[in-house]
Amino acid sequence: MKLNFSETGNKLKSSIIRELLKDAMNEGVISFGGGVPDPETFPKEKLAEIAKDVVLNEYKRSLQYGPTEGNPLFRKTFLEFLEKTEGISGLNEDNILITVGSQSALHLLSTVFLDKQSIYFVSKPVYLGAASAFVMNSERYEYLVLHKDGIDVDDLSKRLTELDKKGEIENVKFIYVVPNFHNPAGVTLSLEKRKAIIELAEKYDIPIIEDDPYGELRYEGERLPSLFKLAGKDRVLMLRTFSKILSPGMRLGIVVGNKDLVRKMVMAKQAADLCTPSLTQIIAARFLQKYNLNELLKPTIKLYKEKKDLMLKELEKAFKDMNGVTWTEPEGGLFIWLTLPEGYDTLEMMDIAKEIGVLFIPGSSFSLDGSCANSMRLSFCLPPEKDIVEGVRRLKEAVVKYGKNKNLL
Amino acid sequence: MKLNFSETGNKLKSSIIRELLKDAMNEGVISFGGGVPDPETFPKEKLAEIAKDVVLNEYKRSLQYGPTEGNPLFRKTFLEFLEKTEGISGLNEDNILITVGSQSALHLLSTVFLDKQSIYFVSKPVYLGAASAFVMNSERYEYLVLHKDGIDVDDLSKRLTELDKKGEIENVKFIYVVPNFHNPAGVTLSLEKRKAIIELAEKYDIPIIEDDPYGELRYEGERLPSLFKLAGKDRVLMLRTFSKILSPGMRLGIVVGNKDLVRKMVMAKQAADLCTPSLTQIIAARFLQKYNLNELLKPTIKLYKEKKDLMLKELEKAFKDMNGVTWTEPEGGLFIWLTLPEGYDTLEMMDIAKEIGVLFIPGSSFSLDGSCANSMRLSFCLPPEKDIVEGVRRLKEAVVKYGKNKNLL
Repeated sequence: MKLNFSETGNKLKSSIIRELLKDAMNEGVISFGGGVPDPETFPKEKLAEIAKDVVLNEYKRSLQYGPTEGNPLFRKTFLEFLEKTEGISGLNEDNILITVGSQSALHLLSTVFLDKQSIYFVSKPVYLGAASAFVMNSERYEYLVLHKDGIDVDDLSKRLTELDKKGEIENVKFIYVVPNFHNPAGVTLSLEKRKAIIELAEKYDIPIIEDDPYGELRYEGERLPSLFKLAGKDRVLMLRTFSKILSPGMRLGIVVGNKDLVRKMVMAKQAADLCTPSLTQIIAARFLQKYNLNELLKPTIKLYKEKKDLMLKELEKAFKDMNGVTWTEPEGGLFIWLTLPEGYDTLEMMDIAKEIGVLFIPGSSFSLDGSCANSMRLSFCLPPEKDIVEGVRRLKEAVVKYGKNKNLL
Repeated sequence: MKLNFSETGNKLKSSIIRELLKDAMNEGVISFGGGVPDPETFPKEKLAEIAKDVVLNEYKRSLQYGPTEGNPLFRKTFLEFLEKTEGISGLNEDNILITVGSQSALHLLSTVFLDKQSIYFVSKPVYLGAASAFVMNSERYEYLVLHKDGIDVDDLSKRLTELDKKGEIENVKFIYVVPNFHNPAGVTLSLEKRKAIIELAEKYDIPIIEDDPYGELRYEGERLPSLFKLAGKDRVLMLRTFSKILSPGMRLGIVVGNKDLVRKMVMAKQAADLCTPSLTQIIAARFLQKYNLNELLKPTIKLYKEKKDLMLKELEKAFKDMNGVTWTEPEGGLFIWLTLPEGYDTLEMMDIAKEIGVLFIPGSSFSLDGSCANSMRLSFCLPPEKDIVEGVRRLKEAVVKYGKNKNLL
């Protein structure tokens, strides 16, 4: 059969990460690749009881179609959670939409906002899931280099001025930020920069998309107010998810923001998937009502912090004698971003690394223009501690072997 | 905040059905509107036990991210189900993809196939979910009038010949059919027409999309072979769902077909929602393994058949004295399509019907060009028997009142 795909269809490529992770399954390989939580942190007994109850006693809703906006109980419960944990108030059911994970929210945003000529700001490196959803509709991304305290705001200001001069400001659809423990970079946007971004967004009347999957997973330092909290629902659309704090397999994403924007996303969702599964939404709602999620997260946070500290220590031990190797020191989340000297190509290095038995995600996977080739993303949350020690040793071995092969060392 | 939507974003409208169904909640209103199954038919005890087991004992998969293609166990189990129930064999994991309900599959198809200039064939009336997904990317639909034995195949042949002459055949992306108990029309595509459509699709090398949510809900007559069974995976892409035979709240759609097409849809799904919830997939897999679904469906089929027969009987009683009123007699599924004489506008009639206390879906909701205004969709599966009797009585009252107001009677 002739398959005569659309322009978008022809552009689609499989994610490199996905292909690489297939190798993670090989015996003996230590993987720092995946961004998945440790399944031992899932509250399985509690969820099993609730799942049974919710199917048996709430079947009229849990097994039935639900509203496109999301299950009313879950929406209400999540708004209460936001108020309790962050003091965000003044929201109602028109300000919230439940999606199939955050990925679906990013895709809906791409649909309702982006045409071919649309411009949007993302970081370099960028969260790949967002980039893949956005580029489907427009390739006019504006890159902002990511520093230790977040994206380069001076550059944002400069480019907005330029776009305004060129009469292109109407085409700027949003500024996309991952404020806490960025994927892949691990860095957190400082309070000063949060305020500066908001100021620029106000000045040019541009929406901010705040994607915050990791905010609850803070291991040290103080929680910063979200851009949403600082600027409100009519400037910031906030994306949240239960994938990193309860269970990714339930696929629950939450969109909070301006009601006209939420309404438009609801219309796009009608055509995209009609509604998010009622079953997983009601399980999550009952879980939130019954338990204190942040209290339950404490052992997870302790576990991940220990692993993170261990990996940082091992990186220091392994790479302190090598000039020009740097890495980020995340205060939370799942990722460390390691950068090798210029000339290293971590994608090319994959073959050696696989042979030696260690896996990471090459930096170029998080770039739209082939940059970041000398960086890599390391996830510390899944491997046991002894594998972190051995894995970093193997990583060093791979770097040295590659460096020698390439006459970089 | 200025919301500067995309062209697609600006085109999006809320579904009329959805708005209308909000009124179904009003006290005392009898609704023939919704296409939702009777929740009392859900096997809630069985699903509750399985849900608990699957969370507790399979948490490493059920609560975790899964492959974009779908959970491997569920895919394998569904292929076995197809072999057992329909004798479809020769398929493997590359031929199957699990989506968030069939709506998501339709949306992915629209993404991978349709550009602005793309042409596709749909029926008139059309399943609205499909139409809304397709028109997001192209408005060049070709309508085929639906008869009692399915779409007008002579017209399909004629139009394909014309498109070929005009050099447009390359733009024809697919022929979309709902073969069994069509939504909204209730009609079934005859075996002769199935074969004729396949012949035309072969001749012009065009894929067929066979959307079959209701096939297992046959109340009488003999099961016809699917187009997929007749023509194979390299001509037909088959969409199935558990929404009408197990639980819509689990949102499980299944795509079966050519591996290159499935692969392309998987890539689109990576950007759309990453993966379908693992939890609901594994629950469904364990359910299929443990129970005989078709055996368990027998009481549901008996219940729906009784309601369908009752509605047909009541329609006959109510409308036999009114010239030019016709309705379809479905052998399965959830819907009867009732057509009033020319001049009636069932959308306009809604106000009177609501006053009298009966709800249906106006025919124009299932049309892309405002046609079908004198028809309506009636669903018989949800209201209790006494409401079917009273509801049809009210419907007649509304038709007569409207007809008199409009000087049609």
